[in-house]
Amino acid sequence: MSELSDVLALSDPADGVTRGHLTPGWLIGGAINGGILMALGAKAMAQAVSAGGGQRDVVAFSAYFLSASEPGPVELRPDVLRVGRNFSTAQVSVLQDVAGSPVERVRMLGTVADLAATSEPVHRQQPPPSMPPPDECIPTSMAPKELVGSIAILQRLDIRIDPATAGFGMGAPSGEGELRGWLRTVDDHVPDAAMLPFVLDAFPPVSFDLGAMGWAPTIEFSGHVRAVPAPGWLQIRLTTTNVSGGLLEEDCVVWDSTGRVVAQSRQLAGVRMPSAPPA
Amino acid sequence: MSELSDVLALSDPADGVTRGHLTPGWLIGGAINGGILMALGAKAMAQAVSAGGGQRDVVAFSAYFLSASEPGPVELRPDVLRVGRNFSTAQVSVLQDVAGSPVERVRMLGTVADLAATSEPVHRQQPPPSMPPPDECIPTSMAPKELVGSIAILQRLDIRIDPATAGFGMGAPSGEGELRGWLRTVDDHVPDAAMLPFVLDAFPPVSFDLGAMGWAPTIEFSGHVRAVPAPGWLQIRLTTTNVSGGLLEEDCVVWDSTGRVVAQSRQLAGVRMPSAPPA
Repeated sequence: MSELSDVLALSDPADGVTRGHLTPGWLIGGAINGGILMALGAKAMAQAVSAGGGQRDVVAFSAYFLSASEPGPVELRPDVLRVGRNFSTAQVSVLQDVAGSPVERVRMLGTVADLAATSEPVHRQQPPPSMPPPDECIPTSMAPKELVGSIAILQRLDIRIDPATAGFGMGAPSGEGELRGWLRTVDDHVPDAAMLPFVLDAFPPVSFDLGAMGWAPTIEFSGHVRAVPAPGWLQIRLTTTNVSGGLLEEDCVVWDSTGRVVAQSRQLAGVRMPSAPPA
Repeated sequence: MSELSDVLALSDPADGVTRGHLTPGWLIGGAINGGILMALGAKAMAQAVSAGGGQRDVVAFSAYFLSASEPGPVELRPDVLRVGRNFSTAQVSVLQDVAGSPVERVRMLGTVADLAATSEPVHRQQPPPSMPPPDECIPTSMAPKELVGSIAILQRLDIRIDPATAGFGMGAPSGEGELRGWLRTVDDHVPDAAMLPFVLDAFPPVSFDLGAMGWAPTIEFSGHVRAVPAPGWLQIRLTTTNVSGGLLEEDCVVWDSTGRVVAQSRQLAGVRMPSAPPA
């Protein structure tokens, strides 16, 4: 068992509820990383559809965050909206008990299908970005303490940033709106489809490359899982193009070690731009 | 009143329900266009948040389609999940009565904010694509009857396709995975933020440009509204990059007549690729 398998473990459902446990190793600042919650929610939706005779893989999900999650027990209440021949639809509420009352953390919708049927053949796909191998990239462990000190998950992830997009770590962001790099867990969790909703949100925010070094709260996050990843490093590219009114879109693409696109996402996130004059 | 204002009109909410009426002018084949349903759902979420003292503009929404909608009455049941200082979250069920029972058509989640506060300043944005003016583009009214005959909404919309991406109409798609063009309603509905969820899904599917001329069912649709559009033509660009396992992502960007990005979306959609050998 890897630490990621541990935190993504869910109980068998009983009375429509399945339970998990959020461990402090997945904190970012004072809150549990949103990607962990999305991966749990996706898993609970797939479990519920599959238990009803439907498919077993989440291929699309949308997450809206309602309150910050804390370490401790977490409860997932999935609701199957439709079971179809090839695609089913579910919703899930992710809750935690606060002083005896359930408080909702995340509400999600998702589509459940069978990746074996929705991955092949590949007609066309975005090729992975050209970048140096992991050994020639910059580990986030080298980032300044004030940037990564309060981010517990960085001790669980081995993230290597392409030097061409790592300027933010030295106060010299490129301004292009792009981060590229590699990711694996420190205990070498073998990549699987269930971890991809987490991976899509595991990198530092793309706004770092615009010189906006603050927290980038997610307004809405939607992801697509396109294939089961092969073993090995995952390659990640974040980009943003439209930055206005304190909001930006962050697009993420994840490739596996064979160069296959395995997941992509877009989120709308908050950004506090540095006070340079707007272009 | 334009025909679009008519079909997007909602009753005042009573007992948590607001009502509308789907007119046959918005049919595509046998079903009401999904964009009309998304625009209605977004409007009902904004109405519910605003009635509770919150904001009034949907800035992000995600839609999951459960069954095909028909002309006739439609019922919207919004549920406000959270009212925040700058951003609120809501959910909505879009239902129709079938033989005396409510049947859910669409389930949506959305974020409601104030566009006046989330549009400016513009730090950076994707420039509109270079393309000929509307008069030098190809109206969809010139498309072959077998393509557009059963698409009633094409009589309500004035869509002009950039000749460089209009090859699909003559059996010669570019294969690039891109459609560009202009859009306005035939009765010149003055562009507003409320119509944008509809506009994001109003063009022919991008898969036409890959030679896949069939219906492209939406698996998941998420959109962001970034600004109130200025009067005049809207400019639209659809692209797709990752096509595998009978699925593709369709990305849409909408610019107003000043060249401002006013909305963008990504959907996961089905595609039946022509039987050319996969690359």
